[in-house]
Amino acid sequence: MTRHSREKLEDRLVITIELLENDEDLKLNEYIEELHPADVAEILLELDDDNQVKFFTILSWKRASRVLEEVDSETFVELLEIFKREQKILILDQMAQDDMVDLLAELSEEKRKEIISLLDLEDAEDVRELLIYDEDTAGGIMTKEFVAVRKDITIYQAIEDLREMASEAETIYYVYVVDKAERLVGVLSLRELIVSKPNIMIKDIMHERVISVNLNTDQEDVARLVSKYDLLAIPVVNDNDRIMGIITVDDIIDVIEEEATEDIYKFAGTSETEDIDEDKVSIRILASVKSRLPWLIITVFGGLLSAQIIGGFQTVLNKNTTLALFMPLLAGMGGNVGTQSSTLTVRGIALGSIHGKKEVFKTLFQEICVGFLVGLCCSVIVAIVSFFLQGEMVLSFVVGIAMWANMITAATIGTFVPLIFKRIGVDPAVASAPFITTTIDITGLSIYFTLTSILLSRLVM
Amino acid sequence: MTRHSREKLEDRLVITIELLENDEDLKLNEYIEELHPADVAEILLELDDDNQVKFFTILSWKRASRVLEEVDSETFVELLEIFKREQKILILDQMAQDDMVDLLAELSEEKRKEIISLLDLEDAEDVRELLIYDEDTAGGIMTKEFVAVRKDITIYQAIEDLREMASEAETIYYVYVVDKAERLVGVLSLRELIVSKPNIMIKDIMHERVISVNLNTDQEDVARLVSKYDLLAIPVVNDNDRIMGIITVDDIIDVIEEEATEDIYKFAGTSETEDIDEDKVSIRILASVKSRLPWLIITVFGGLLSAQIIGGFQTVLNKNTTLALFMPLLAGMGGNVGTQSSTLTVRGIALGSIHGKKEVFKTLFQEICVGFLVGLCCSVIVAIVSFFLQGEMVLSFVVGIAMWANMITAATIGTFVPLIFKRIGVDPAVASAPFITTTIDITGLSIYFTLTSILLSRLVM
Repeated sequence: MTRHSREKLEDRLVITIELLENDEDLKLNEYIEELHPADVAEILLELDDDNQVKFFTILSWKRASRVLEEVDSETFVELLEIFKREQKILILDQMAQDDMVDLLAELSEEKRKEIISLLDLEDAEDVRELLIYDEDTAGGIMTKEFVAVRKDITIYQAIEDLREMASEAETIYYVYVVDKAERLVGVLSLRELIVSKPNIMIKDIMHERVISVNLNTDQEDVARLVSKYDLLAIPVVNDNDRIMGIITVDDIIDVIEEEATEDIYKFAGTSETEDIDEDKVSIRILASVKSRLPWLIITVFGGLLSAQIIGGFQTVLNKNTTLALFMPLLAGMGGNVGTQSSTLTVRGIALGSIHGKKEVFKTLFQEICVGFLVGLCCSVIVAIVSFFLQGEMVLSFVVGIAMWANMITAATIGTFVPLIFKRIGVDPAVASAPFITTTIDITGLSIYFTLTSILLSRLVM
Repeated sequence: MTRHSREKLEDRLVITIELLENDEDLKLNEYIEELHPADVAEILLELDDDNQVKFFTILSWKRASRVLEEVDSETFVELLEIFKREQKILILDQMAQDDMVDLLAELSEEKRKEIISLLDLEDAEDVRELLIYDEDTAGGIMTKEFVAVRKDITIYQAIEDLREMASEAETIYYVYVVDKAERLVGVLSLRELIVSKPNIMIKDIMHERVISVNLNTDQEDVARLVSKYDLLAIPVVNDNDRIMGIITVDDIIDVIEEEATEDIYKFAGTSETEDIDEDKVSIRILASVKSRLPWLIITVFGGLLSAQIIGGFQTVLNKNTTLALFMPLLAGMGGNVGTQSSTLTVRGIALGSIHGKKEVFKTLFQEICVGFLVGLCCSVIVAIVSFFLQGEMVLSFVVGIAMWANMITAATIGTFVPLIFKRIGVDPAVASAPFITTTIDITGLSIYFTLTSILLSRLVM
């Protein structure tokens, strides 16, 4: 499908560029009018600067607004600049509030003020308010373009109201019901409105238990609620239960994808949470270096600590350098088992399936058992194969035992660390691959050399 | 919020159990009638077997159906058993088709047939059809409970039709338009229906470009389209463009979460894609062992290969055992850098931001530069610190150089392997942490010993 839709984009680009270069504005307009704004934005972003301007001016204002909702903040400012003040006002007026706020949040104070000054009074006030909230909270991702009706009107009136408000609302599929003080007291779906008798009062058929979130609720928790209750939108209230905005399911999907990417990157020990919309490669590279280096430097010191520990066993190593051969194998297997356990634990915590003391102990017990069993299998293989390769039975046996002990320890650490982190209020995802593998390297090498120096001296020397 | 909602569940459990044990059925019914089915299912799953049966029989049939949609297949069968045949028929009739199909797919052939025999003819046919499709495709996650109208009716008629069909449809917010042959020819939102004049014909206001997927489209691609175009539902068509079903956004959210978890687990080298709904710990442990062992065994052989390579340099190692001290550090840093690069590349491919030759080369160039820079920083730190710790300048210098070379190679391999995998049609996520780290261990150690044996013999010996 990706391939397919990419091909389509390439085809569209060829058509667009051809029409642009032949100045066939009418034909081009007809062609792009049929496309989804998301597709138009894709085409737009692939054009060079001159063609971009030419292309964008061909769009109708309504469409220009929809397309601007899909681009990054830099392109947004650039494209907006093409128009005269009056045109800018018209375009901005048509844009979805939450998308505009996302774009404005990335601009300089000055540029932001300039754009807000083009909005009508009500919109400007809304946007200023929305910009205040932390972008990871319900307040930061909500829109103020929602439909609310008073509880003491009839279905008929409500539908009439909806017809009027439809053009300004992000969704009309949930109708929120408020009292005189604008407190959220109920909810109705458009579906229920449609199938009910027109003369019934709203308050008689509304649902009084409304699932809502506070302005400060973390966006991840908002996503969890929407996902759990299969909602199309969720209302956001302030501390006095007054409805302040709504969050629609399309924004929730973005949150879920963003959070998943963030988690995946954390596992790899980098905080590159956002795909930077920056064309200059040098800036992208420096941003990557900056976000990865901290983890790497921590692990450098972990590695140097390992070196010191091995240094302590250097006399053992001098007697039998063959021991060094198995160091990467041991550290590697420990790291792998530990990463598996920590990944499952961290994801379990994130998805809410590990909670409460009972589950914590169950997870720990289970992971240790898994470590015991996979460790046993791998150790037997290593012992047998290394005996055939090296011909030293005692050494092979000792390496196997050490690896087994190491893998059980690794599974325990991999499960324990994220659980402890969660307990003390640290993000469990910090117990990511680099952190876990470094810890396990250190414990693993200590186990290996302690065991080998004891066992080899007893069994051989 | 998790904590908060957990606390709430615990409160609810206390209330429920108290009401159950005092046989206050009416009060309990009143209490749970106010809760969301997802919450009722949560309570239900926490009760012991006797209370579960007692609790479930208190629910109304309609509610029982909604609650059954939320439980796992085992609980579903158990709870359904409580009822008499006639009651079962009523309950099953109310259930959402796609949820029922998901449950049935996990049951034995026999059990499945038994339940399908309780459905009315039309539903039974639908369910049998849906069970045929692969569960990871559009056909496997769609529902046949959708609303379609003919293109040659008026808005007024369409709204009347909707009122009638509303109770049987999963969503009525998108109205699909078909021709005589039931081919999908257009779409309209309920919003557009509501605000249009009643006497207009459907075909005059419908959108002719409908974003749809084929029965065989992979669920991940379906999710990408819904996310890109901010849809509430997407129609599924067969090869003749006949509309076969729809997929609603709540199911898309499940797909996105499922795929993210799958990707995260793959990074850690395990295929434990589903949180197994299995109470017996022993079965869970064996399932984990089974899914993790393949990766671990592959890496065992990788590790044994490393051991062979180091064995080839044993004369160098015998001369200077201090070289062994830095092996874990080198392998570890290579693994970390490689994992970072591979994670970013794999996620970039998954999210569709790396495509086309231009981006492939850009990504490769960028990651190598990042490897070069972070490698430089880390190597300088290692060289300086190890000089202070060991006092051997030449060795420290050589270790630094080897680590730098190793980290650049690691970043290159970490980026290159997933890109190649994608190119040759292998899932890039297979280039997960274990695979990458093992490869890098082998190359890293070869670089280290080759460089040290050349440089140390030239500089010192």
